[in-house]
Amino acid sequence: MSKKKSSNPRFSHLDPQGKARMVDVTGKPDQYRKAVATARLSCQPGTLRALRRQALPKGDVLTVAQIAGIQAAKRTAELIPLCHSLCLSHVAIQFQLTSRTVEVHCTAETRAGTGVEMEALTGATLAALALYDMCKAIDRTMTIEGVRVVEKIKK
Amino acid sequence: MSKKKSSNPRFSHLDPQGKARMVDVTGKPDQYRKAVATARLSCQPGTLRALRRQALPKGDVLTVAQIAGIQAAKRTAELIPLCHSLCLSHVAIQFQLTSRTVEVHCTAETRAGTGVEMEALTGATLAALALYDMCKAIDRTMTIEGVRVVEKIKK
Amino acid sequence: MSKKKSSNPRFSHLDPQGKARMVDVTGKPDQYRKAVATARLSCQPGTLRALRRQALPKGDVLTVAQIAGIQAAKRTAELIPLCHSLCLSHVAIQFQLTSRTVEVHCTAETRAGTGVEMEALTGATLAALALYDMCKAIDRTMTIEGVRVVEKIKK
Amino acid sequence: MSKKKSSNPRFSHLDPQGKARMVDVTGKPDQYRKAVATARLSCQPGTLRALRRQALPKGDVLTVAQIAGIQAAKRTAELIPLCHSLCLSHVAIQFQLTSRTVEVHCTAETRAGTGVEMEALTGATLAALALYDMCKAIDRTMTIEGVRVVEKIKK
Amino acid sequence: MSKKKSSNPRFSHLDPQGKARMVDVTGKPDQYRKAVATARLSCQPGTLRALRRQALPKGDVLTVAQIAGIQAAKRTAELIPLCHSLCLSHVAIQFQLTSRTVEVHCTAETRAGTGVEMEALTGATLAALALYDMCKAIDRTMTIEGVRVVEKIKK
Amino acid sequence: MSKKKSSNPRFSHLDPQGKARMVDVTGKPDQYRKAVATARLSCQPGTLRALRRQALPKGDVLTVAQIAGIQAAKRTAELIPLCHSLCLSHVAIQFQLTSRTVEVHCTAETRAGTGVEMEALTGATLAALALYDMCKAIDRTMTIEGVRVVEKIKK
Repeated sequence: MSKKKSSNPRFSHLDPQGKARMVDVTGKPDQYRKAVATARLSCQPGTLRALRRQALPKGDVLTVAQIAGIQAAKRTAELIPLCHSLCLSHVAIQFQLTSRTVEVHCTAETRAGTGVEMEALTGATLAALALYDMCKAIDRTMTIEGVRVVEKIKK
Repeated sequence: MSKKKSSNPRFSHLDPQGKARMVDVTGKPDQYRKAVATARLSCQPGTLRALRRQALPKGDVLTVAQIAGIQAAKRTAELIPLCHSLCLSHVAIQFQLTSRTVEVHCTAETRAGTGVEMEALTGATLAALALYDMCKAIDRTMTIEGVRVVEKIKK
Repeated sequence: MSKKKSSNPRFSHLDPQGKARMVDVTGKPDQYRKAVATARLSCQPGTLRALRRQALPKGDVLTVAQIAGIQAAKRTAELIPLCHSLCLSHVAIQFQLTSRTVEVHCTAETRAGTGVEMEALTGATLAALALYDMCKAIDRTMTIEGVRVVEKIKK
Repeated sequence: MSKKKSSNPRFSHLDPQGKARMVDVTGKPDQYRKAVATARLSCQPGTLRALRRQALPKGDVLTVAQIAGIQAAKRTAELIPLCHSLCLSHVAIQFQLTSRTVEVHCTAETRAGTGVEMEALTGATLAALALYDMCKAIDRTMTIEGVRVVEKIKK
Repeated sequence: MSKKKSSNPRFSHLDPQGKARMVDVTGKPDQYRKAVATARLSCQPGTLRALRRQALPKGDVLTVAQIAGIQAAKRTAELIPLCHSLCLSHVAIQFQLTSRTVEVHCTAETRAGTGVEMEALTGATLAALALYDMCKAIDRTMTIEGVRVVEKIKK
Repeated sequence: MSKKKSSNPRFSHLDPQGKARMVDVTGKPDQYRKAVATARLSCQPGTLRALRRQALPKGDVLTVAQIAGIQAAKRTAELIPLCHSLCLSHVAIQFQLTSRTVEVHCTAETRAGTGVEMEALTGATLAALALYDMCKAIDRTMTIEGVRVVEKIKK
């Protein structure tokens, strides 16, 4: 997208004077919108071993993070100032564990006049932050990496 | 911290059966608490050049992100399920720009019976997500990296 | 509904592995939806006599409870983790007093792809809790009973 | 409490004209406050059997309800109009299952100038409503009963 | 509007008994709706001179107020008890400075079954209050005046 | 206050570069704080006559506005970006009616390290906006005037 216009890319959220603004989507038709975003909690190997041994048998830690992500995705417009309020028809959070990371995937879907990548990003990030919160007592070296959109669909 | 106890580190947010729980801070005295967290928005060089040319002269983009971060830090307990509500006495958001990144620093301070690292992390992350939102029209390759606590004080 | 499938009823909010999930209503058409729920505050007779004498002439107590119910119904998706955000076209709260009870009725209506019984239940319940709050100084034996859906329409 | 004053019990939330008001707790010292409340989801036996078979092995359903209860308890002042904002030092939600019911216990604690029974009631009730939401696809006859305060301490 | 019916004007938010109610917009078709509202912060001349010298070069003060207004407009249904939740397709806040006043204009737009004048009024008012907050350390005589709807369109 | 320093008044919310910031109240002792603010809804005489005839006998309209004001005052820190979260120990809303106006008084009190004038202003303003909402069907000429702080105490 930025390639063709690279000499003068336009920020949709800035007016010609460089002032921030909410994009006007009044005229846009409702369309199916989907976005998938990821975030990765990077931990010490001992943290993940402890998590697998103490927490995962009951499943609680991941469920708490899942709910944090779903709730945040629904409230994205309260958190991101220039986002539009919209009613998501679906939010799903999934986790993949490796020896050092918990990868979070958040899928957001709706029919609306504006995309939902911020909803997916917000859901993935808050799920990762909730995991961080629950693990911080045993690992102060955790970081969250790779927060990005991996899929965006409009049809 | 995890070193001494590495054979059996304890998650403060898990009971002995592995169930998630809110930590009971009823008996803890109020103390001065401070935490600083960072998050880094990684962009294409053209994005930052455009940002500097179109947005930064007015300052708006960074101010919008700053407000997003401050507002989110104040509402951390609504976003992170097992966090305690507390009244922050100070939240500050600062930005450093390089040729490819915007680094966000969030400082949270209070007097309370529990730490404020989740407040600092939430503030830094939401400021970075708000920046992402404002730049996404011209750069679909952005990621947020390095979300972590860089300072934590209790006295 | 549960009769035919009683050998193996399905929880729409659980995936085949028993994990909680938000139901995907992306494909569902918007339809008129209505639900009515009730909740009953059960008090000592003296409480209701005092309420009638001191509070009801001004009407305030019931109005405060009505507003609590309407406001909660509108925010159901923030309170019930797997509920979808939706825009209610109508919420009404009504009260019936007997010698020992205040019965709350909450009607919620919308056009959406998902039902509104949780909105009606949340409205009725929070109205009853707000009444409880205002009466608790004179009656510590109150209970809330009979929270249920009494009507559900889709057309 | 209502016994001695039964000839003329006073509603703390009503002024002498019967108008609703927020109680002024400005002069009250901070004290340890604890309240425990319960709510009971009453289901068909088949619902509880299905819950035990499909949902409880993963624990998700109860964890989702626990988080709903904790989050609601923290936001009680937003939901109950005349409640004071306060910072809870602990919220705990516990569940007991019988053949026909899920009993929810919510404990709320703080140091403040006002009690926390509304926080405990709100937490217990919203946890029960979240359970209702997750089970409603297989049981339309559920009700919530017995919402009440079972313990209240100030010292 | 009030002219024809002046002998007996009807409050849409009151039932025949004078009880407040939410208007039922279930049957109303979605239409384009726009409203513009204004609010005016009236200051001492020295305040505006200081604002121009210290704050306006960076633009921050107005941007903070703009974000406060946009965020409040999106959450109007949480703030005004009998308002309907709706998803605004556009909110814009603009400022005009004279020697003694900052005039705020808020435009709200959507497609919905109900008007958006309360959204425009709430956005303009909260932007003015946010300005007040930032200037109150140097001017205790400020007032907000002229909060009103200046345009309302339905088509 | 602005008199002594009139040659160079300082905005506490601006840093030396003119950037907006949250004031750091970390070191400030908790003190009793009180503020009273007013707002005035100005109507056509017929509106107030209709209000007195249809609405005031039941009291509802003023009670709804009172609750809107109390709820908003408690949530001021969510609405005014640079305000600190704090727990109000008392909020009271009162109304005075003349032939053309409804005057709203909001009193906010707390013990905290920062003042509560924004809480009082927010409460008064939202109560006036809620009144506007309920009367707008019969009077399109209403305005809100005179939003200001009338008393501020710290001791």
